[in-house]
Amino acid sequence: MSYELYYWPTIQGRGEFVRLALEEAGADYIDVARESEGLAVMIRMMDHVERPPFAPPFLKDGETIIGQTAAILLYLGARHDLAPKDPAGGLWTHQIQLTIADIVAEAHDTHHPVAISLYYEDQKAEALRRAKEFRDNRIPKFLDWFETILARNPTGDGHLVGRTLTYVDLSLFQLVEGLTYAFPKATKRALKDTPRVASLHAAVAKRPRIKTYLASPRRISFNEEGIFRRYPELDR
Amino acid sequence: MSYELYYWPTIQGRGEFVRLALEEAGADYIDVARESEGLAVMIRMMDHVERPPFAPPFLKDGETIIGQTAAILLYLGARHDLAPKDPAGGLWTHQIQLTIADIVAEAHDTHHPVAISLYYEDQKAEALRRAKEFRDNRIPKFLDWFETILARNPTGDGHLVGRTLTYVDLSLFQLVEGLTYAFPKATKRALKDTPRVASLHAAVAKRPRIKTYLASPRRISFNEEGIFRRYPELDR
Repeated sequence: MSYELYYWPTIQGRGEFVRLALEEAGADYIDVARESEGLAVMIRMMDHVERPPFAPPFLKDGETIIGQTAAILLYLGARHDLAPKDPAGGLWTHQIQLTIADIVAEAHDTHHPVAISLYYEDQKAEALRRAKEFRDNRIPKFLDWFETILARNPTGDGHLVGRTLTYVDLSLFQLVEGLTYAFPKATKRALKDTPRVASLHAAVAKRPRIKTYLASPRRISFNEEGIFRRYPELDR
Repeated sequence: MSYELYYWPTIQGRGEFVRLALEEAGADYIDVARESEGLAVMIRMMDHVERPPFAPPFLKDGETIIGQTAAILLYLGARHDLAPKDPAGGLWTHQIQLTIADIVAEAHDTHHPVAISLYYEDQKAEALRRAKEFRDNRIPKFLDWFETILARNPTGDGHLVGRTLTYVDLSLFQLVEGLTYAFPKATKRALKDTPRVASLHAAVAKRPRIKTYLASPRRISFNEEGIFRRYPELDR
């Protein structure tokens, strides 16, 4: 049976971390809200199931519904050989994903520092201040942490965990993609100091299934509805 | 062997969710940074281990070091009967914890909407706007979600998951504690519409081990260094 992925149909957003894992795994899945009337199905489901996700994305696998991006990846990683089999390694991989989730939330808040219920234009003054902090302190701090992890990986610096690809390599790729879209100048500067992160990003882009996916219509383009938005005034 | 918990020694913060689980489990643990010179040990450890946590809290269990609050609770829940044994139930419990982590991060950002590197006083204008959104929209939305989960629990509305206590009941207790400290007026209003959440909060406070813990010096008081801060101008 196919997995059913539920996520907003017009953005990469948090759903993209799940899409990348499904694509790399070669898993059969339906991106439900992008099908005809699928969005209505998604909304109805959130309103009626016994274990309702707080927000998309969520994944349906038979009778099991899983919300929260990192929890979905924890589930998929174990099933598709995208995470170490040993419990400590699996938890470490998950811990890295949770930290990626933290910077993704901060990236979102650069353009919505006051309220998701307000337009960007109504919180632009606050956004200018928050984006400066994000560029100057937060992007370097997070990328340095990933660089450190790569450098300390006892089996080599080509992957965050172990010697083969895990879902957090895919997620770090997507994070760098998003940061590069939203903050091209600041991200380019930060990547100069984190060469291992830059190399991993480039290596993931060349993986056959990922390359095919990125060139396909299944990959939605970045846009100013998503988490990573290009507002030139927020980058320097 | 005792668990070693590493967290900032003067605040409840995110470490408190771990402390509550350890206390309810009756687990043997050392709150390392509160011991003499423990803070220096914590900082050194983050700088030198092969798998460095991005930030406290982290838990050391023998050779295993686990960062990220939700990952720590996933680990402890399975070991101390504070989560369901079936994989789907365990993942659902974890998903609830991750959503609690989301509102905790939002609560933090009410007083630090621009930058954690700046004082509250230097981002007060932004804080006033963000706190209004948090009070008016976010607290009710999250508490409604917990209320829905309690109402839909097929085994009764006394616990978020199943018919016995899990770590997310403890975490929801702590969330309500924190919100009540920081936003007493707004939280009181929201709890009127979420009676099951209010009841669960009251029931957790009466559990013998939790009651003992809350009255002990191990429970740090809320203060204006932590995640939940009482700035009267941010509550209405």
